[in-house]
Amino acid sequence: MKNFLDEDFLLKSETAKVLYHNYAAKMPIIDYHNHLDPKAIYEDEKFKNLQEAWLGGDHYKWRALRAIGVSEEEITGKAEAKVKFDRWAETVPYLIGNPLYAWTHLELRRYFGIEENLSPKTSDEIYDKVNNLLQKDEFSVRSLLKRMDITHLCTTDDPADSLKYHKKLKEEGFEIQVLPTFRPEKAMRIDLDSFMDYIAKLSEVSGIEINSYNALLAALCQRVDYFVKAGGLLSDHSLETSIFSEYDVDASNRIFKKKAEGLEISEEEATVFKGTLLVDLGKKYNECNWTMQLHIGALRNNSKRMYEKLGADHGFDSMDDFNYAPQISKLLSILDYDNNLPKTVIYSLNGSKDNFMLATLAGDFQQSPHRGKVQFGAAWWFMDHKMGMMDQMETLASVGVLPTFIGMLTDSRSFLSFPRHEYFRRLLCNFLGDLVENGEYPQDVEFLGKMVEDICYHNVKKYIGFN
Amino acid sequence: MKNFLDEDFLLKSETAKVLYHNYAAKMPIIDYHNHLDPKAIYEDEKFKNLQEAWLGGDHYKWRALRAIGVSEEEITGKAEAKVKFDRWAETVPYLIGNPLYAWTHLELRRYFGIEENLSPKTSDEIYDKVNNLLQKDEFSVRSLLKRMDITHLCTTDDPADSLKYHKKLKEEGFEIQVLPTFRPEKAMRIDLDSFMDYIAKLSEVSGIEINSYNALLAALCQRVDYFVKAGGLLSDHSLETSIFSEYDVDASNRIFKKKAEGLEISEEEATVFKGTLLVDLGKKYNECNWTMQLHIGALRNNSKRMYEKLGADHGFDSMDDFNYAPQISKLLSILDYDNNLPKTVIYSLNGSKDNFMLATLAGDFQQSPHRGKVQFGAAWWFMDHKMGMMDQMETLASVGVLPTFIGMLTDSRSFLSFPRHEYFRRLLCNFLGDLVENGEYPQDVEFLGKMVEDICYHNVKKYIGFN
Amino acid sequence: MKNFLDEDFLLKSETAKVLYHNYAAKMPIIDYHNHLDPKAIYEDEKFKNLQEAWLGGDHYKWRALRAIGVSEEEITGKAEAKVKFDRWAETVPYLIGNPLYAWTHLELRRYFGIEENLSPKTSDEIYDKVNNLLQKDEFSVRSLLKRMDITHLCTTDDPADSLKYHKKLKEEGFEIQVLPTFRPEKAMRIDLDSFMDYIAKLSEVSGIEINSYNALLAALCQRVDYFVKAGGLLSDHSLETSIFSEYDVDASNRIFKKKAEGLEISEEEATVFKGTLLVDLGKKYNECNWTMQLHIGALRNNSKRMYEKLGADHGFDSMDDFNYAPQISKLLSILDYDNNLPKTVIYSLNGSKDNFMLATLAGDFQQSPHRGKVQFGAAWWFMDHKMGMMDQMETLASVGVLPTFIGMLTDSRSFLSFPRHEYFRRLLCNFLGDLVENGEYPQDVEFLGKMVEDICYHNVKKYIGFN
Repeated sequence: MKNFLDEDFLLKSETAKVLYHNYAAKMPIIDYHNHLDPKAIYEDEKFKNLQEAWLGGDHYKWRALRAIGVSEEEITGKAEAKVKFDRWAETVPYLIGNPLYAWTHLELRRYFGIEENLSPKTSDEIYDKVNNLLQKDEFSVRSLLKRMDITHLCTTDDPADSLKYHKKLKEEGFEIQVLPTFRPEKAMRIDLDSFMDYIAKLSEVSGIEINSYNALLAALCQRVDYFVKAGGLLSDHSLETSIFSEYDVDASNRIFKKKAEGLEISEEEATVFKGTLLVDLGKKYNECNWTMQLHIGALRNNSKRMYEKLGADHGFDSMDDFNYAPQISKLLSILDYDNNLPKTVIYSLNGSKDNFMLATLAGDFQQSPHRGKVQFGAAWWFMDHKMGMMDQMETLASVGVLPTFIGMLTDSRSFLSFPRHEYFRRLLCNFLGDLVENGEYPQDVEFLGKMVEDICYHNVKKYIGFN
Repeated sequence: MKNFLDEDFLLKSETAKVLYHNYAAKMPIIDYHNHLDPKAIYEDEKFKNLQEAWLGGDHYKWRALRAIGVSEEEITGKAEAKVKFDRWAETVPYLIGNPLYAWTHLELRRYFGIEENLSPKTSDEIYDKVNNLLQKDEFSVRSLLKRMDITHLCTTDDPADSLKYHKKLKEEGFEIQVLPTFRPEKAMRIDLDSFMDYIAKLSEVSGIEINSYNALLAALCQRVDYFVKAGGLLSDHSLETSIFSEYDVDASNRIFKKKAEGLEISEEEATVFKGTLLVDLGKKYNECNWTMQLHIGALRNNSKRMYEKLGADHGFDSMDDFNYAPQISKLLSILDYDNNLPKTVIYSLNGSKDNFMLATLAGDFQQSPHRGKVQFGAAWWFMDHKMGMMDQMETLASVGVLPTFIGMLTDSRSFLSFPRHEYFRRLLCNFLGDLVENGEYPQDVEFLGKMVEDICYHNVKKYIGFN
Repeated sequence: MKNFLDEDFLLKSETAKVLYHNYAAKMPIIDYHNHLDPKAIYEDEKFKNLQEAWLGGDHYKWRALRAIGVSEEEITGKAEAKVKFDRWAETVPYLIGNPLYAWTHLELRRYFGIEENLSPKTSDEIYDKVNNLLQKDEFSVRSLLKRMDITHLCTTDDPADSLKYHKKLKEEGFEIQVLPTFRPEKAMRIDLDSFMDYIAKLSEVSGIEINSYNALLAALCQRVDYFVKAGGLLSDHSLETSIFSEYDVDASNRIFKKKAEGLEISEEEATVFKGTLLVDLGKKYNECNWTMQLHIGALRNNSKRMYEKLGADHGFDSMDDFNYAPQISKLLSILDYDNNLPKTVIYSLNGSKDNFMLATLAGDFQQSPHRGKVQFGAAWWFMDHKMGMMDQMETLASVGVLPTFIGMLTDSRSFLSFPRHEYFRRLLCNFLGDLVENGEYPQDVEFLGKMVEDICYHNVKKYIGFN
C-alpha cells in the first residue's frame, strides 16, 4: 500500500517512477492557457489569506461546497473569511476521488510545505500557518509563480484590452514571459444584446469605424497585430451549440447591418456570422503563425436564478451534448482547402462522448512540416481529472501519435493551481510505464525519457513558437 | 487467484475488505425504487417453484435466453416449468462477464444456501432443492424480504391506484415499510390513444371532473396528497425522446381540449403538455418535500412483432441516444428559479454517453441545506453491472461529491434480487479501497467506514426522509 | 516486468496464458470481412519490397506519418521506396500505445522471423532482409496467407463485379476459400452524380433494363444469386448520416424516376430510397440465408483539399457522431415484423458513444434458432485497438452473451495484417482470465477453452455457414 501523496504518488511501476523523477519532474512549465490576471502579476500582489487565495474565485471549489450543502452565504456571500475556510475544511475530506482532493494537498505541500491533510481538525492550524506565510515577500504572486519553475504564461484577453500589464511586464523584463491570448468572444456573440456596445468599444480602441462585417474583421485583424506586438501567439474561441454552417461574407455583412439597425438576429444567422468570422480570423491567425484554440461544448449559466444573482462563471455551467462532427469538419476543411488552416488545438468538454471523434478528426488535417498540426487538446475543465486525462491520453495514443502532444495547461484563475502540471505528468509517466511493464513497448528508458520531456515542455515550446 | 464468489468477492485490497466486512455488510437495506407487487407482500405469497420465482417476469433473463438461441416457447411460452428452467441452467454458464452470472449465484447462496454453480449438471438437483425450500414458510415473500434486512421498500404505482395493500401493510404494522411511489406515466402520455380512457378513470377515482389541463393537474395533486397519506415520499417519471420544450399552461389547456375532442396531437404539442405538467407536478412534489425521480433514455418496444405478441416490458427495449442537456437544464432551471425545484434524482440509461453531462448538470442545481439536492442517480437497467456502476461512481467522484450519493436500488420486479445491493456495496468498497491503497486518499478507515455506511444507508434515509 | 512482445504478450494471468496457448493459438482463422484483392491472390503476386507491402495502401500508417510531420511527397508521393520506408522507421518508435506498434512488430516476427524492433537504427537491415525474403516463393501472397492458417477469406465486392478471380480460385480448388461479399454501395448512392452511370453498368451486367426502383431491385437480386453461385455468404453496407426514415416502394420508384430525368434528389428522398432498398435487399439476404453487415458511423473525405488530390480512402476519414437508435430500431423492426430479418452484424465506429446503445438494441432482435442472430460486431477501424476491443467485449459481456460472439476480422487491405487476429485473441483470453482470477467466474478451464475456440473460430463458421 502506498502512503497518501508520497513521492511516488500515482506512479505504480518502476519505469513510471524513473520517467517521472528523472525526466518529467525536472522540466520547467509552460502554461499556455489560463485566466490569470496580469495586473496582479505586474503589481506582485499578496493574498490577504488562504480563503482569498483558494476560495475567492474558484468555481470548482464552490461547486463542491454547494454539493455538500453549504449555504451560498458561506460560499460567495458575506460570511467571514474564516467561516468560509472552515466550510471548505469540512468539505475536503469528502472529496475522495475528486481531483480537488489531490490538488488541495499538493498545493499545501508544494507552496507552503504543509504535510497535514486539511480537515476540521487541522483547519485553524493550516489557516494560520499559511496566512502568515502569505504576508511574506516569498509568497507574493510573482514568488508563487517562480517557485513553480514557469517560463511562459498565456493569459486570456479581450481584443479591446490595452494589454497594459503585459507590456509593462515585458518592458520590465520579468523573467517569466506573460503573454496575451486573443479571445474575441464578445465580437462573435451577435446574438447578445450587448453586441453593439462592444462594437462601439472596439471601434474606439481600434480607430476603425465598424459599420459592417468587413470593418469588424479589419478591426479585429488590427488588434491581432497589436497582440502580436505584445508577444501574443495564440487565440482562443469557445464554441457552443451551433458551431458552423457556412462561410458567407455577403450574408455576414447583411446580418451585421440588421443587428446595427436593432433588428432581431435568428439562430441560423448568428451561426453564419460566427462561422464566417471564425474562418476569416483563422486565415489571419495562420498568416501570423498563431495557434488557434477551440474549446467546444460548454452549456453555461444553467441555473437562471443563480446567474441573475451572481453572474457568469460562478459554477453553474455544465457539459452540453450536441453533435458537431460534420460542422467542425467543414470549418477545418474550408481553411485547409486554401492552405489557410492555422495550427489548431481542439479541446473537448464532453470527453466521454466526443474524444474518439475529435481525435480521429484532428488526424484528417495533419500537415507537414508540423508535428501534430491539429492537436487533440488536453482534458479540459470538467474532464480535468484522472479519468478524463487518462481517457484523453489513451485515446490520442490509440488513434494518433501521443509523443506529438503539446501537453498540459491549467486553464485556471488561481495562482496556486500549478501543481496540476505535476498531477498530469505523473499520470503521463504512469501510463507510459504501464505500457512498458506490460510488454507493449520496449524498455528504452532514454528514448521514453526524451518523449516525456517533449510532452511536458519541448513540444509546446516548439509548436507554439515560444522563445 | 481468488475463488469464485468467495467472501472477498470483488474486493481486491485489504482496505476494501475491511470497509465491506466491517461497515457495508452490516447496514440494512432501503430499496427506494423497485417494481415489486404490494399484493404479493401483503398476502405473503409463496412461489410454486424456482422457475416461477426467477423466470416468471425477469426480462434480463429472457434476453439472455433469446441471445443464446432458446425458442420463445421455452422462454415465455407454454413449455413446462422444468423445461424452461433447464434452458436457463444451460444458458447461465455462458453469462461470463454479465451481472446475471453473479446475481444468479449470489441469490442461490444468500437465500437458499446453495454453493453449487448452476449448469446443466446441477439443474435437477438445484431445482428440486430450492422448490422444496420454497414451500416452507421461511421462504414466503415476506420471509425472503426479511432475510435481507430491509427496512423500507418503495414500489411504483399509478396515481389512480387505491394503494389498498400499502395501507393494509401499514395498518398491520408490517416491520418493513412498504411505501408507494407516484408514477403518473399514463396521465402524461397525451400522445397515446388510451389517454382519454385513463383520464376517465382518474376522474372517477379523484372525484374531479377532468375537462382541462388545470383539472388534470388538480386531480393529480389530490392523488399526490392521497399517496402522502399512504406514506409516499417519491415520484417517478420516465423521460423519452423530447423531454422538455417550454412551460405553457394556456397551450396545455388548448392541447388537452384538442385531445378531448378526438383531434390528433402533434409531437411538439405532446412535448409542451408533458413538460408543463412535469413542472407543475414538480412544484407539488416540492411542497410535499418529495423526491422527484427522472429516468431518462429508454427506447421501448423495438421489435414490433414481439410487442404485439407479448406486450410491453418483455425484454424488447434498449437505450436511446438522443441529446438532452439543454432540455433538462431548462426544465430544472424553471423549477429552480422560483425555488420550486424538489429534491431530484436523475438516472441516465445511456451511461457511457451521458454520465459526465448529467453529473455536471446535477451540480448546477445543488442548494443548501440539502446534501446533494440533485442526485446523479445510480447506474440503471442496462447499466446495472460492474462497468456501469463503476462508471457512475467514478464519474460522480470525479466531478461531484461521492459521499453525498444516496446509493443503490434494485429497480427490480423480483423478490430475489436484493443481493444486488451486496454487489453494489462490494464495488463501492473496492473503489474506495483502491483509492486509498494507490495513495490517492489517506488510510482513515474510521472516516471511510462512516462514508460507506452513509452511502449504503444513512444518506438515502435522511435525503428522502424515511422514518 | 514483461519483455516486449514475449510469448505472453497481453496475457497477465495464468488462466489467460493457458486459454491463449492451449486453445486460441491453435485455432485457424476465418477472416470474414476484408478488402483484399482476389486477383493478387489468384495470380499469387509477390511484393517488390516491404515498402510496397506495408505502405502501398495502408491509410492507418499514412495517418501516423502525417501526424509526425512527414511530407506527403514521402508518404503517397514520388519519393523513393527506401526513403518512404525510412520515414516509417522513424515514425514507428513514436507509436507507443497505438496498435500499429504491436502490429508492425507482430508482422515482422510472425511472417519474417525478425525480432528486432523497427527504428532508424534497424531500418536498413530490416528492409534488406525482408526484401530478400519477399522475392522467394514462400513469401508470395498465397504463401503469406497459408502461413497464417486461414481457412476462409471474404473480400468486398461490387454487385457488377464478374467475380472472375473468385471463380478461378474456386475452380482451381485453392485450399483457402476466397469468397465474395456483396457490397451494393454504388447502387444505393442516388445522391451522387455518378449514380446513373453505375445503373447503366449494372443494367449491362445483369441484362435487366433498370428504369425503376423495382427494376433496380430485380437486378440486384439477380446479382445476389450470382454471388451465391460464387460462394458468397455475406453482404455489407456502410450507413452514414441519415440511415433510415421509412419503407416506401412507390416513393422510391418516383425518386428513381426523378434521378433518371436528371432532377435533383433531396437528402430526405435519398434517405427514403436507400432505406427502402436496404429493407428489400434484407429480405433477399434472408431468403438466401446470408448475413447482412452494417457498418455505421464514418464521416468521409474530411479534407476536401486532400480528397481532390488523392481521392477516397487515403486516410482523411473520421468518426461521425450522429444519433441513430430510433432509425436502426425501425429498420430492423420492419424486417423482423414479417420474419424477414436476416442474420445481421452491426459494427459501431463511434464506439465510446454508441457501444452500449447498439449492444442493447441488438439484443431486442435475437431469435431462435440462431445463437446471437443480431451480432454487436467487433471493434472496427478507428476502434480496432486495445481500448476499443476491450470496450466492445466488455460491453457485449455486460449486456449480452459474449460466448455467442463471432469474433475478429481484419477489415484490411493488407496481406500482412493477419496477426491482428492474434492480437484480438490475446485480449479475449486476458479478459476471460481476469474474470476468473478475480473470482467473477469459476476456473473451469475446459469450458472456458471451448468458449475461446468458439469465439475464435467455430461461432463464425456456424453462424455464417462456411463449409
